[in-house]
Amino acid sequence: MSNRFHLVSVLATSFLFASLAAAAGGEPFVQVLASSSRNVSVETWEANSRTITPSSPIPWSVRKFKLHGGKQEGVDVIVVDNGKLQVAVCPTRGMGVLWATLGDVRLGWDSPVKEIVDPRFVNLQERGGLGWLGGFNEFTCRCGLEWSGHPGTDKFVNNVGDEATMELTLHGKVANLPASEVEVVIEREAPYRIHVRGRVDERMFYGPKLEIWTDLSTEPGSSGFRIADVIANHGDAPQEFQILYHTNFGTPLLGEGATFVAAIERITPFNAHAAEGMATYDKYAGPTLGFIEQVYKIKPAADAQGRTRALLKNAKGDRAASLTFNVKQLPYLTQWKNTNAVGEGYVTGIEPGTSFPHNRRVERQHGRVPKLAAGESRNFQIDYTIHVGEAAVKAAVDQVAAIQADRKPQVDAEPEKIE
Amino acid sequence: MSNRFHLVSVLATSFLFASLAAAAGGEPFVQVLASSSRNVSVETWEANSRTITPSSPIPWSVRKFKLHGGKQEGVDVIVVDNGKLQVAVCPTRGMGVLWATLGDVRLGWDSPVKEIVDPRFVNLQERGGLGWLGGFNEFTCRCGLEWSGHPGTDKFVNNVGDEATMELTLHGKVANLPASEVEVVIEREAPYRIHVRGRVDERMFYGPKLEIWTDLSTEPGSSGFRIADVIANHGDAPQEFQILYHTNFGTPLLGEGATFVAAIERITPFNAHAAEGMATYDKYAGPTLGFIEQVYKIKPAADAQGRTRALLKNAKGDRAASLTFNVKQLPYLTQWKNTNAVGEGYVTGIEPGTSFPHNRRVERQHGRVPKLAAGESRNFQIDYTIHVGEAAVKAAVDQVAAIQADRKPQVDAEPEKIE
Amino acid sequence: MSNRFHLVSVLATSFLFASLAAAAGGEPFVQVLASSSRNVSVETWEANSRTITPSSPIPWSVRKFKLHGGKQEGVDVIVVDNGKLQVAVCPTRGMGVLWATLGDVRLGWDSPVKEIVDPRFVNLQERGGLGWLGGFNEFTCRCGLEWSGHPGTDKFVNNVGDEATMELTLHGKVANLPASEVEVVIEREAPYRIHVRGRVDERMFYGPKLEIWTDLSTEPGSSGFRIADVIANHGDAPQEFQILYHTNFGTPLLGEGATFVAAIERITPFNAHAAEGMATYDKYAGPTLGFIEQVYKIKPAADAQGRTRALLKNAKGDRAASLTFNVKQLPYLTQWKNTNAVGEGYVTGIEPGTSFPHNRRVERQHGRVPKLAAGESRNFQIDYTIHVGEAAVKAAVDQVAAIQADRKPQVDAEPEKIE
Repeated sequence: MSNRFHLVSVLATSFLFASLAAAAGGEPFVQVLASSSRNVSVETWEANSRTITPSSPIPWSVRKFKLHGGKQEGVDVIVVDNGKLQVAVCPTRGMGVLWATLGDVRLGWDSPVKEIVDPRFVNLQERGGLGWLGGFNEFTCRCGLEWSGHPGTDKFVNNVGDEATMELTLHGKVANLPASEVEVVIEREAPYRIHVRGRVDERMFYGPKLEIWTDLSTEPGSSGFRIADVIANHGDAPQEFQILYHTNFGTPLLGEGATFVAAIERITPFNAHAAEGMATYDKYAGPTLGFIEQVYKIKPAADAQGRTRALLKNAKGDRAASLTFNVKQLPYLTQWKNTNAVGEGYVTGIEPGTSFPHNRRVERQHGRVPKLAAGESRNFQIDYTIHVGEAAVKAAVDQVAAIQADRKPQVDAEPEKIE
Repeated sequence: MSNRFHLVSVLATSFLFASLAAAAGGEPFVQVLASSSRNVSVETWEANSRTITPSSPIPWSVRKFKLHGGKQEGVDVIVVDNGKLQVAVCPTRGMGVLWATLGDVRLGWDSPVKEIVDPRFVNLQERGGLGWLGGFNEFTCRCGLEWSGHPGTDKFVNNVGDEATMELTLHGKVANLPASEVEVVIEREAPYRIHVRGRVDERMFYGPKLEIWTDLSTEPGSSGFRIADVIANHGDAPQEFQILYHTNFGTPLLGEGATFVAAIERITPFNAHAAEGMATYDKYAGPTLGFIEQVYKIKPAADAQGRTRALLKNAKGDRAASLTFNVKQLPYLTQWKNTNAVGEGYVTGIEPGTSFPHNRRVERQHGRVPKLAAGESRNFQIDYTIHVGEAAVKAAVDQVAAIQADRKPQVDAEPEKIE
Repeated sequence: MSNRFHLVSVLATSFLFASLAAAAGGEPFVQVLASSSRNVSVETWEANSRTITPSSPIPWSVRKFKLHGGKQEGVDVIVVDNGKLQVAVCPTRGMGVLWATLGDVRLGWDSPVKEIVDPRFVNLQERGGLGWLGGFNEFTCRCGLEWSGHPGTDKFVNNVGDEATMELTLHGKVANLPASEVEVVIEREAPYRIHVRGRVDERMFYGPKLEIWTDLSTEPGSSGFRIADVIANHGDAPQEFQILYHTNFGTPLLGEGATFVAAIERITPFNAHAAEGMATYDKYAGPTLGFIEQVYKIKPAADAQGRTRALLKNAKGDRAASLTFNVKQLPYLTQWKNTNAVGEGYVTGIEPGTSFPHNRRVERQHGRVPKLAAGESRNFQIDYTIHVGEAAVKAAVDQVAAIQADRKPQVDAEPEKIE
């Protein structure tokens, strides 16, 4: 720890960031925006293709700024414009993806929560463990890392080595923790991929020593972006973990007649209420006051390499967004239908994960809580693509059909038995 | 959300506030001090009559600054001096009124809590739901908006549409939320009323979508100020709400022999302990170590328009402060006697509200929890006046008597039956 | 309160600190670094022997700076270099002692918690009351003030004067509260002792009105530092309190073969698991994956003045660190062995206190929860010394032996009976 502070002494008198960009043209450009190990945080920063990748045919830019006012005072946001698509990441809220836009397509939704809330205003324990809902408005919000599902009692090992119980809170802590390391990395060779990277730590004495290195990247001029995360256990003992990529769509993709399309091996209603809607799980209603959420648990069908795809298609069939991922990394997919009235939050979730969103206690009983050995890490990748035009949408749907091939999905009429 | 961020991009590079003052002389002067929708927060600001209302015969000023040190680091305060009376508002703590002074009269009290506490240091759930007490030292502290009373279990509707239970915390959340919009508005025509306005949001997915626009205003040279709030339900479903204006007096008005004067239709002791003091509910003792709070629930008598008044008069009868409000807006009045020793908090509360301070579960059983339809709003106004001199105090007391007229208050010997 | 704000108006427009240094040479130099009563906080500051004590033969320096990035954004740290020993104090975390170094000896440990965590990111109530563990990485972390021990239910008196129950959280609140007053005081006469002082308040309406003035001081050129704290009850009623100086050692002093040396009247295992290790309580193993903490409760033997000493000696016997304190102030000593694997936190604690770390309910039953009368205060002093070289280590050990004299420690085979 003394070494850390010797470093601090060098940096503390300066508000300038440390530019780690290597001199060599082939090395990527690296800009540290925040670092607790280097004692750095950058208030505002901006870069663009002209200075960093002058040979790029497509102009791009990255801007980092702070939000002001109310519960979002001091919250950091990074907006990447790849020349075609814009995407916003929030380091203060666990590197969550706030929204993305491409022309008239917006990825995201209109939550009743209007501000990008400083996690220090969120008490995860309030409302019987539902406090997470007070900050929830991201397009993609990571749920995890120690647990990712519903609130409720689960066991853990306490400081005297005894099995004790604790109340898990909805969707875990990672979305309400600031990233401890944040950097922008730009590849200097075509296609000049732009990365926004951040490390979020869930560390506790007598608790998890989990770190997630998140990496959101996009190629200039492309119609999508990639999330490529690494979760590592830095403890010396094995550690359970969970992650769920809670990806949420409102208008314009979601609307009456919008369709959910996925390659499905098996689909199971989350509860009796969802079972009632089983026949039309893939169709969306317009905003419906009093609509109660319906959740479906999906074991995706995948190709030989494990790749699968799920997408949301608008009613007209000329706009869609897809998530492409690998079931070896993310074996479970949750579809969350919440087509309530606009003011209540009209939204659907497409949520690949290591688990379904039951309480960890339930997921463990069903063998859906993975463990990391000491020092072990695991990779998770999701490619998000926006499809514009009937032909592009049809091609995206066809690709799902190709994965499905002639396999008939098993459609369960009843929920899984839960103790 | 993308629109919001386009706006952000315009403003983010500037630390200057947006002056919204219209050019026309008749339009009020408006200064935005914080705004999460406009991405603005102003560190310090000052205005006075010379520049804004040069024709005003009475010099006034408004100052906005930040507090520093300990638990109040970064907390915002706005002090209005109307030329005669000074009043302080805290945007960081839900637009609470910290104190007011007029000559030798101070409205406020000496809480054991000495700092103006950043809400992020307050855990409302601690101490069995009494965490609110760790920041409580305002003159007028709003209690609400989803609930306003005592801690304890109450029901709510959870994310799967089921009735579940949650632990309410003392006096709700609104006093520990920062205002999301803050502005000073000054009327350019006589009497040049000065407004400090702020919007505090209690928004949650699967929860309330309540907003309160608070407005504290005062006329230059006057002996009081007005609170005029609007609570609105921005959800698409009906929403319960509560508000209680927890207005607290210590010295110099409170003292041995001070008197509480109110127009009363009915008065009921809160519990058996309060019942013991029923005969002397309107008289105050000096600081008394070990005094246990006594609370009285009052249905105020009102004039034909619904107006009523309650006041606290000092022992000598030459200083008083009154609250004038309308029972159509605020039908219930709570008197809180807590004449404990000085170091424990010698204080009395005069608290108009939509409810009494029982747990919401109890208030609901007695029909005292109002509901707002989708999009509906309600207004609440309280006029605070400081009365100086025996004649002025007598006039204020006479006005209460005029409201009371020949109606005899119903004085209950027993508390209300509570399940 | 109005007086406070008049003062605020003077200071609010300035970012400069108030230098309280007296002109007279004999008066100590005083630098206020943060003060909620004076509305001051200083971003960075530095002083050294050349300007403050030019006649000091030993050069010293004090630096105050802010940490940046992640959960430590904005956290304040003060580092004192006495010319031989460096010690770091964290005002934001209750004036905790982060670490000290002297040559190759580091006092401190390598917690799995890597950042100096802003208390606003710590929810003490999480994990069944173990949330404190999310910020724990100090060398000396004060536990207290209202309670200092294990989580669990205890009684308290609520706002209506009734005895109610609340869930205590691990080790109390004081380590996760920012200091409300912080100052550096330097004596201008030899030996030019340097003090870092801070006041941390645990104040609540209907709760404690406890303040602790912490004072860490060191003499230029010396091999140690002193903590000299004063805890005062500012309420008008008697108030229970507890304090435990949770002092934690990792490498290089802790290692296989390291020895704990203390003057002991009686030693008792904390629980059955500790009882199993009773025979070797004073010997340390190397990092051992899966090691479950073993805790020993010690009633120290003391000299005629009440002084006692405990120390940790490295395996080679050429480095040690000792705590010297008085059993009239701190009658109980807890030894915490947690020689788990490095990544889990390889650490031992030597913890003088007013109590053992059982839940306050248990401590009260055994008469180990002191009370302060209204206005009463109590002093606590611990001298920390680093011993370098075999001769110095032997001398330190001999001093313990001299205190022990021919008294044979009572070694209990069984834990204390706990209801």
